[in-house]
Amino acid sequence: MQGTTMGTDSYRYQTVEKHIMIMMENGALQLGEKLPSLRKLSTNLGVSISTVNQAYVELERKGVIESRPRSGFFVRQRAVRLPRTETSPTPMEAPRPVTRIGLIQTVLESVGGTDTNAVPMGVIAPGKDLLPLKELSKITATMIKNDPERALGYAPIPGDEALIRQIAFRSMEYGIPTKPDDPVITAGCMEALYLGLRSVSRRGDTVLIQSPTYYCFLQLLESLGLRAIEVPSDPDGGVSPGDLIHALNTFDISACILAPNFNNPDSSLTPDEAKREIVQALAERNIPLVEDDVSTDLHFTPKRPGTFKQFDEKGLVLLCSSFSKTLAPGYRVGWMLPGRFRQKVLAIKATTNVSTSAPAQMAIAEYLRQGRMERHLKRLRNATEKQMDNMQLHLERYFPGGTRVTHPKGGAVLWLELPKQVDSVELFFRAREKSIGIAPGAIFSTQDKFTNYIRLSCGSPWNENLRRGIEELGSIAASMVQE
Amino acid sequence: MQGTTMGTDSYRYQTVEKHIMIMMENGALQLGEKLPSLRKLSTNLGVSISTVNQAYVELERKGVIESRPRSGFFVRQRAVRLPRTETSPTPMEAPRPVTRIGLIQTVLESVGGTDTNAVPMGVIAPGKDLLPLKELSKITATMIKNDPERALGYAPIPGDEALIRQIAFRSMEYGIPTKPDDPVITAGCMEALYLGLRSVSRRGDTVLIQSPTYYCFLQLLESLGLRAIEVPSDPDGGVSPGDLIHALNTFDISACILAPNFNNPDSSLTPDEAKREIVQALAERNIPLVEDDVSTDLHFTPKRPGTFKQFDEKGLVLLCSSFSKTLAPGYRVGWMLPGRFRQKVLAIKATTNVSTSAPAQMAIAEYLRQGRMERHLKRLRNATEKQMDNMQLHLERYFPGGTRVTHPKGGAVLWLELPKQVDSVELFFRAREKSIGIAPGAIFSTQDKFTNYIRLSCGSPWNENLRRGIEELGSIAASMVQE
Repeated sequence: MQGTTMGTDSYRYQTVEKHIMIMMENGALQLGEKLPSLRKLSTNLGVSISTVNQAYVELERKGVIESRPRSGFFVRQRAVRLPRTETSPTPMEAPRPVTRIGLIQTVLESVGGTDTNAVPMGVIAPGKDLLPLKELSKITATMIKNDPERALGYAPIPGDEALIRQIAFRSMEYGIPTKPDDPVITAGCMEALYLGLRSVSRRGDTVLIQSPTYYCFLQLLESLGLRAIEVPSDPDGGVSPGDLIHALNTFDISACILAPNFNNPDSSLTPDEAKREIVQALAERNIPLVEDDVSTDLHFTPKRPGTFKQFDEKGLVLLCSSFSKTLAPGYRVGWMLPGRFRQKVLAIKATTNVSTSAPAQMAIAEYLRQGRMERHLKRLRNATEKQMDNMQLHLERYFPGGTRVTHPKGGAVLWLELPKQVDSVELFFRAREKSIGIAPGAIFSTQDKFTNYIRLSCGSPWNENLRRGIEELGSIAASMVQE
Repeated sequence: MQGTTMGTDSYRYQTVEKHIMIMMENGALQLGEKLPSLRKLSTNLGVSISTVNQAYVELERKGVIESRPRSGFFVRQRAVRLPRTETSPTPMEAPRPVTRIGLIQTVLESVGGTDTNAVPMGVIAPGKDLLPLKELSKITATMIKNDPERALGYAPIPGDEALIRQIAFRSMEYGIPTKPDDPVITAGCMEALYLGLRSVSRRGDTVLIQSPTYYCFLQLLESLGLRAIEVPSDPDGGVSPGDLIHALNTFDISACILAPNFNNPDSSLTPDEAKREIVQALAERNIPLVEDDVSTDLHFTPKRPGTFKQFDEKGLVLLCSSFSKTLAPGYRVGWMLPGRFRQKVLAIKATTNVSTSAPAQMAIAEYLRQGRMERHLKRLRNATEKQMDNMQLHLERYFPGGTRVTHPKGGAVLWLELPKQVDSVELFFRAREKSIGIAPGAIFSTQDKFTNYIRLSCGSPWNENLRRGIEELGSIAASMVQE
């Protein structure tokens, strides 16, 4: 029950809500069954009747339960989450050049554009209501006015010193051995991944990725002329060390790029023990590993999951992360822990854009220094988990039978497997006509896989608009099953 | 006499100063000759005696003239500017891989670091006193506070719409046919050049550059695995179309990267007619041209020089520029007019860092919208020209005989040819020991050229510290002549 603020009166009803949800998941409450009376639950949980009432009203609003006049509250029929997605058997194929840019480009133009603004489930960015807009803007304004020289002058190539120190400190807190000047600041996580991949590979090299993987990795690989080997990513277990070692022994792999925590799109979490084994297998072969850490801060688990980097004894892991999914997407501030590739990374950064925008760096450094980040992250995680709950419940309500969905332990996306008949690229185009943004599964692999999968972003706060969007999307999908 | 504010009382003495300088350049005033009396010049020019006196005192302070007790003012012996640098005969050599990163890295670490802060003639950036620190910071703060959503949210990949429109408008004013949504915003000019070069070339390709050329171009070429062909850059005439066409006919050239206006380091200006011929020769062969426009706004000429881009009918020219040398280096905001390579440029931008930092874009858009840029540029140009005058005068005073220096019509650097015995890399290291930053000539070519050249930045306002730095540098150079 992490993520719920206990004891605070205004949030107490959420605790009750969670309690009901857990009873449903446990099977203690079955479909169609009557819920405990307000009075009974109030006594059992030691909260007021009005708190229980508030929780029931909220659950009804979300479509989990329904009230029947003069009978009380009942669990809605089919009101359990969709079955989890199964691991797709992913036979390993020979390395192949990456050529997805056409399709990805079309999707990207759409998700970033105005034509899917109405129901923006295509793009991953926290809803604006969840960002500390005023707080961070005020800090930014104050910092720039107080020290215009630092804001207007070039930041050092590795980054603003105050920000570097803050990030080093946070990394140490997360269990990564970090020296105070180890981090390199980048223009977002994407730039960190770009610098990382360019530092460890050359055109024509083969890079190991997980499957499905973030489509921007595929774009980056294609743009750098790299080839890809895919190893399966299991929604429940992430990347298996066995699969990875098999690939390393079979192909001539120059580098890896992996997201161990809440991989986009399947939100899979590779266990810490598997991380250790993977880092060790790569270290034995001297193969660098670019680690995408961008979603880790959105964990719903009580403890932040570990990283590849914390097991890295040879400096072969290049950890990449940013503030774009948690704090300020538009500021374009990310970072790397580049290990032994520091000099290469800095040389490429210098010839790419010299250094990262100074005002944005100063502002975030100060935001961290004032200790505001952890409080904000706690709020954001709670809200994201709640949004995800809501989306899952409504997906069940509106999507055709045979649909499966992930049950992530963090991140901000759901990964849906639709009935085989549904071509998700076709679904993408039909949804776009209704101003609904989604990401079709095909763009998450170099192979012809995931053609009946879609990824839905859970960044935006739940509202009637989203509900209608999911209803409409579900009915389009249902109509495609019948075609 | 552009660059001098006429009529304002406090600046009138500068007009008198300029008058004397012109007489000296014309030969109307010879070395050692007596200057007109205060009274006579006051009558001739229609200014007060105290204004003439102020001008003479200023010229004496700069070391141009000297006062002799009871005799009046005299032109100092050798008090003319150093002879201009001659065009070095640059035999064309076969394409060669670029491998200067080691030396350039050492120099860059030094110029960016604290060890040459005392006399920062190595790095090109306008002195902080010349930037509108308070004005721009205030605008930035206001913009972010008024519209935090725009500041924190992702800017579109091509850039903030208000900034794109402002840049399109300025480009049209400068005679470049531009549609309102043509510009692409980048994180500085360096990123524009990087995106441009990646869009038009592949590893192993040969790129035509001018010689000397900005060392960051060489770093970029090396980092992208490109080969370089050098054509001579003449301090007085820039790149000759004949040389360029000869190279095009001799080698298999995939693309060019050239700075026609105030090329860094020789500050050469390629005439507009030559620009037209060059663009035409490239268009006939379908060869793309990446144009570095970053120094053009610092023209001392009455009119802004033309661009390659204005002659571009086939969309083969990718103009690259930024606000880093004029307004806000640390904001990292530049732009491109990418011609027919727009889609490629955007795809690479998306996989490099998605988009440019939003707060910095918003702030500069508003600064331009308020019409503040032209006034600021006028001030900056006047100040830079004056700083350059001062530096030239003192170089003459302190540098060994046989030294030649450029007389730029714009930009912010001087290019010095020292006597043949002086190894400028050695000079660089000896200067660094005295906390004096310079850039040695060798880093501006892939060949073993310019070994007795140095580049001095004129960005910082003239002061005693700079004077002492030049004195010390001159005496180190003189000692190396005698070794």
